[in-house]
Amino acid sequence: MKKLRVGILGYGYWGPNLVRNLYKVSDCQVVAIADNDQRRLDAAVIAHPGLETSSDAQELLYRNDIDAIVVATPPSTHYLLASIALENGKHVLVEKPLSRSIDEAKSLIDMAKRYKLTLMVDHTFVYSGAVRMIRDIISSGELGDVWYVDAVRINLGLFQRDVNVIQDLGPHDFSILNYLIQSEPKTVSAVGIAPVEYGSGTPISLAYLTVRLANGVLAQFHLSWLSPVKIRRMLIGGSQKTLVYDHLDPDHQIKIYDKGLETITEGDRRRLLSERRIGDMYAPKVDQTEPLEQMCQHFVECALSGKTPLSDGVDGLKVVRLIDATIQSLDQGGAVIAL
Amino acid sequence: MKKLRVGILGYGYWGPNLVRNLYKVSDCQVVAIADNDQRRLDAAVIAHPGLETSSDAQELLYRNDIDAIVVATPPSTHYLLASIALENGKHVLVEKPLSRSIDEAKSLIDMAKRYKLTLMVDHTFVYSGAVRMIRDIISSGELGDVWYVDAVRINLGLFQRDVNVIQDLGPHDFSILNYLIQSEPKTVSAVGIAPVEYGSGTPISLAYLTVRLANGVLAQFHLSWLSPVKIRRMLIGGSQKTLVYDHLDPDHQIKIYDKGLETITEGDRRRLLSERRIGDMYAPKVDQTEPLEQMCQHFVECALSGKTPLSDGVDGLKVVRLIDATIQSLDQGGAVIAL
Amino acid sequence: MKKLRVGILGYGYWGPNLVRNLYKVSDCQVVAIADNDQRRLDAAVIAHPGLETSSDAQELLYRNDIDAIVVATPPSTHYLLASIALENGKHVLVEKPLSRSIDEAKSLIDMAKRYKLTLMVDHTFVYSGAVRMIRDIISSGELGDVWYVDAVRINLGLFQRDVNVIQDLGPHDFSILNYLIQSEPKTVSAVGIAPVEYGSGTPISLAYLTVRLANGVLAQFHLSWLSPVKIRRMLIGGSQKTLVYDHLDPDHQIKIYDKGLETITEGDRRRLLSERRIGDMYAPKVDQTEPLEQMCQHFVECALSGKTPLSDGVDGLKVVRLIDATIQSLDQGGAVIAL
Amino acid sequence: MKKLRVGILGYGYWGPNLVRNLYKVSDCQVVAIADNDQRRLDAAVIAHPGLETSSDAQELLYRNDIDAIVVATPPSTHYLLASIALENGKHVLVEKPLSRSIDEAKSLIDMAKRYKLTLMVDHTFVYSGAVRMIRDIISSGELGDVWYVDAVRINLGLFQRDVNVIQDLGPHDFSILNYLIQSEPKTVSAVGIAPVEYGSGTPISLAYLTVRLANGVLAQFHLSWLSPVKIRRMLIGGSQKTLVYDHLDPDHQIKIYDKGLETITEGDRRRLLSERRIGDMYAPKVDQTEPLEQMCQHFVECALSGKTPLSDGVDGLKVVRLIDATIQSLDQGGAVIAL
Repeated sequence: MKKLRVGILGYGYWGPNLVRNLYKVSDCQVVAIADNDQRRLDAAVIAHPGLETSSDAQELLYRNDIDAIVVATPPSTHYLLASIALENGKHVLVEKPLSRSIDEAKSLIDMAKRYKLTLMVDHTFVYSGAVRMIRDIISSGELGDVWYVDAVRINLGLFQRDVNVIQDLGPHDFSILNYLIQSEPKTVSAVGIAPVEYGSGTPISLAYLTVRLANGVLAQFHLSWLSPVKIRRMLIGGSQKTLVYDHLDPDHQIKIYDKGLETITEGDRRRLLSERRIGDMYAPKVDQTEPLEQMCQHFVECALSGKTPLSDGVDGLKVVRLIDATIQSLDQGGAVIAL
Repeated sequence: MKKLRVGILGYGYWGPNLVRNLYKVSDCQVVAIADNDQRRLDAAVIAHPGLETSSDAQELLYRNDIDAIVVATPPSTHYLLASIALENGKHVLVEKPLSRSIDEAKSLIDMAKRYKLTLMVDHTFVYSGAVRMIRDIISSGELGDVWYVDAVRINLGLFQRDVNVIQDLGPHDFSILNYLIQSEPKTVSAVGIAPVEYGSGTPISLAYLTVRLANGVLAQFHLSWLSPVKIRRMLIGGSQKTLVYDHLDPDHQIKIYDKGLETITEGDRRRLLSERRIGDMYAPKVDQTEPLEQMCQHFVECALSGKTPLSDGVDGLKVVRLIDATIQSLDQGGAVIAL
Repeated sequence: MKKLRVGILGYGYWGPNLVRNLYKVSDCQVVAIADNDQRRLDAAVIAHPGLETSSDAQELLYRNDIDAIVVATPPSTHYLLASIALENGKHVLVEKPLSRSIDEAKSLIDMAKRYKLTLMVDHTFVYSGAVRMIRDIISSGELGDVWYVDAVRINLGLFQRDVNVIQDLGPHDFSILNYLIQSEPKTVSAVGIAPVEYGSGTPISLAYLTVRLANGVLAQFHLSWLSPVKIRRMLIGGSQKTLVYDHLDPDHQIKIYDKGLETITEGDRRRLLSERRIGDMYAPKVDQTEPLEQMCQHFVECALSGKTPLSDGVDGLKVVRLIDATIQSLDQGGAVIAL
Repeated sequence: MKKLRVGILGYGYWGPNLVRNLYKVSDCQVVAIADNDQRRLDAAVIAHPGLETSSDAQELLYRNDIDAIVVATPPSTHYLLASIALENGKHVLVEKPLSRSIDEAKSLIDMAKRYKLTLMVDHTFVYSGAVRMIRDIISSGELGDVWYVDAVRINLGLFQRDVNVIQDLGPHDFSILNYLIQSEPKTVSAVGIAPVEYGSGTPISLAYLTVRLANGVLAQFHLSWLSPVKIRRMLIGGSQKTLVYDHLDPDHQIKIYDKGLETITEGDRRRLLSERRIGDMYAPKVDQTEPLEQMCQHFVECALSGKTPLSDGVDGLKVVRLIDATIQSLDQGGAVIAL
């Protein structure tokens, strides 16, 4: 069978992980890599002998022996590089976020459609065993109607000048939300802080985002680079059960709790307060295969077969739209933005 | 020395705890208790032989041998009972919240001032060893400038028809915030859900509240009756250190983390991601004396000496004002309310 | 129906808890209490108005209007007081341990048998919802064959001169073991330390005990007053599943883990090391009724009906025998003692 | 400066980690690798292009352009390969355990001494930031006199036929003990179980070991392949403070607790039981550099300079001696073995 010949743009923070995992995909041939930093190219060749390198991304975009381009460069360059790749007939996998603006995202979707090419965004988490299992659990109706999603993604550091905490961490939770709950966002609001101690250009480093979906679900996100306690936890509350997804729990990433809720009268209150309101809890075994490997496998499969990716341009656009709306709300002091 | 003679109105959920702790205060004489439920009065006498009882709160309010009244009845009755007590020259301790409306709270403050009587609200947490220690730590400057306060107070159940989750759990965090950070709230916004499965009259059971203080501090509150995971945690982030207050940690309620933050360039990012950004952590020993006992002691002391209570009417008003503003915001779909 | 009239000897550390719970038992009438410390008697009357008191235990032992005696005095007095009570025709509930020596325990069992009286030991934990549920789980065969029991009961402080850590904490775990696994102990060994810094008479404050049962189960106990980390945890490993009983987990005292074990060859080893070997986990809801109340209820029921108690004299003797053997082993430098 | 030219024997489970880290040492040149499995050699070359390979370990042992041999083959071959290497004038780094018998270990030590060569054992943990920091803390006297060491190293699986749990996990804790506490073991005892369900040749899979040191320290080890809960924790209790080393805590591997102990009388007992006996706790930042890299660096440095390694043959012998004694004790039903 024909292999997908891939060129990678960017070998900075995430690029090496992408290359390493693309090498594992049997139907994929990693042809060349481009980066403007020679030391990175040297590192790439040491890790992957035989890999062709170039200091110029353009060079790869026009090669006839490359079928697909992986864009792992800074966000501001995503649109330009992806659009050239599509125009040159190449399938494209873009790092999150798909683009900086809604218009750019729409334009990329149009181009991919017109040229019948695969456009996919690396929303890694939707390829994790845990998130896929959660989707199955929700679909099975085990939780009942989902009422709310509460996501906390906080930790210390990684304080960047060129991107704020919403752009950095938000795409993870937004793409998970879109994947788990099939309903359109209706309103968004956001507040945050940008610690002035770090200078006037300091970006938002802690933010709270609220998203209302069309089906009534309330989704709340706490994103922070300022927390000494590292938390990656999502509560998904339903009318029947509540699911807790703790990405950092080495043994049990998913826990499902029986509903323990009851309406009570004041008369019962004292008695009830004295006991813990808790039912059975169940922690299923979760597939621990590396999500990035699954994602790479899926991209190659979609590009070769024409199948629509799980995280296609439309999903990428949804995430860009949410980021855009949250930043509007931030600029307006937390006002509720209708989508 | 003269003892403070106290009458208690209400022996429902919290009343027994108040009576038990008032008995421990040496300068306090618990004289009588009123409740309209005879079974509760019987229980009170079994627990405290010799205690006088009455089925009519009014009776206690007019007795000359009672110096102070403790109002532990439902919130809707706080104003009426407290105002009669003050008019009859009695010091008053009111359960949280002080009243249902801002006007009522102001009126009580005025009356207490006019008659030179003690008006105090039972904001229990500000009398806990942990919260007092946190105030000292902030005052000492150890955290640097405080940037944000993130409070999570969530658990299962205790789902009530007559009060929403903000009125139930909010006063705890609002009073802690007021006590710890001496700055006025400027804006408030709130969103929440009232699970329709429980009927149309179901109150808000999960809410996110955002409060901006005049000094720039961003305070966020997650209050919920819908979480199977019980959390009582507050992060207080400063320019130098961050403090984590976990009320449920049996050993270490307070942990103080050295700042591990640095501004980084994209070039450093990969290296930094591979190591945990964490400094030293320190968990001081916290005084575990029961806060309610401290609170009762403080009320008796203030009533006898004329000292201004730590949680006086003005603090009670601040909490009422915050509750009022959050409910306004909820009614307006999460709009930002200026105070 | 006739009520059981009970007299209590000793109102020190545990006595108040016993009295408080005996009051809750409807078929029980708490008649009188004896203690040689007048302040304790005063405290008893304040807590329980109408309770008769005596400074002399003997007085209660000979009263005709008392049907049963609860012995909550120091261990060295258990035998004397319980034997007089039995000789005077009274049912007896004794605090753990039943007695100081094996002979004393046997003698009490003989007397109770001869006079057809109830002799019960307060092995509180076997009346807890968690331990009863664990027994049901083991009986159901869910764990398969039980291979080992690993018990850790460690915390700081409560450093006593008159009793060592084995006598203090051991009866809890020994009685749980006897209740859960129906097999006789065959050998016992023990090592421990008695920190000399506290003086020459300092008792053993940390000990490791090993018990082999006739059915091959290996039971190991870590008991300590010297640990800053408080742990109350028991692992029960079986051929099919393993159960973890964490007494201090507020939400899930019992967790049941699927077996994840497999025999592997060296060739597989590397691959297997890279993944966590974990199966599903299940945490059933545990009855949180206070064990002491259950125990009191059970004593009254047995005394009135003649039913054999769950923790009768024979169980008390088993515990005494294990304590006796461990102390022999300690004296012999950890030698294995056959029972 | 001259580089140390290294040949590696064995590329199974641990070999790849050793090779990867040796490549990071600037004074080291990794020359060749030998393994009898061609697929492993292929994997080695893919990972490290240019690396010479051989299917015969002997070949490397006689090459003149190799200065040092790393023995990462199964334990039963350690002695033979290491002794040939030493006889051929090569420095030797051996995987733990050094050898299968005490005599073999002594013989290797003698040879290294005679030929003035470096003999080092890969006791990886003594090169970790945490263990080195703990040694400094103990040396500084902060803990006071050390009374006991309690080590728990338990997890699921990795159930092997050719090595028991003591040989597999014991060397880690034994080498840490030897490194932290400078005192000779005096007695050893051990019990364990070998689940018969896995066949008659099944090795000991769970064991409890007790070691008494000459200075009175009691060291206890719980080693298990049968626990669904993964624990890597060591308590080190001293007369002044207690240190908890939790290898799996991602943020705080070391916690130091103030002493909270006091001798109490029975009269105080009740009051003391009602409060947690806990002092301040402090968690210093721990160096997270990979221990294996430190170990490789140290081996190269010692081989080039003639410095005595931190984990030399004598340390390897101590560990072998402890394993030997525990197996003797196991064979004698847990008898106390004098060393």
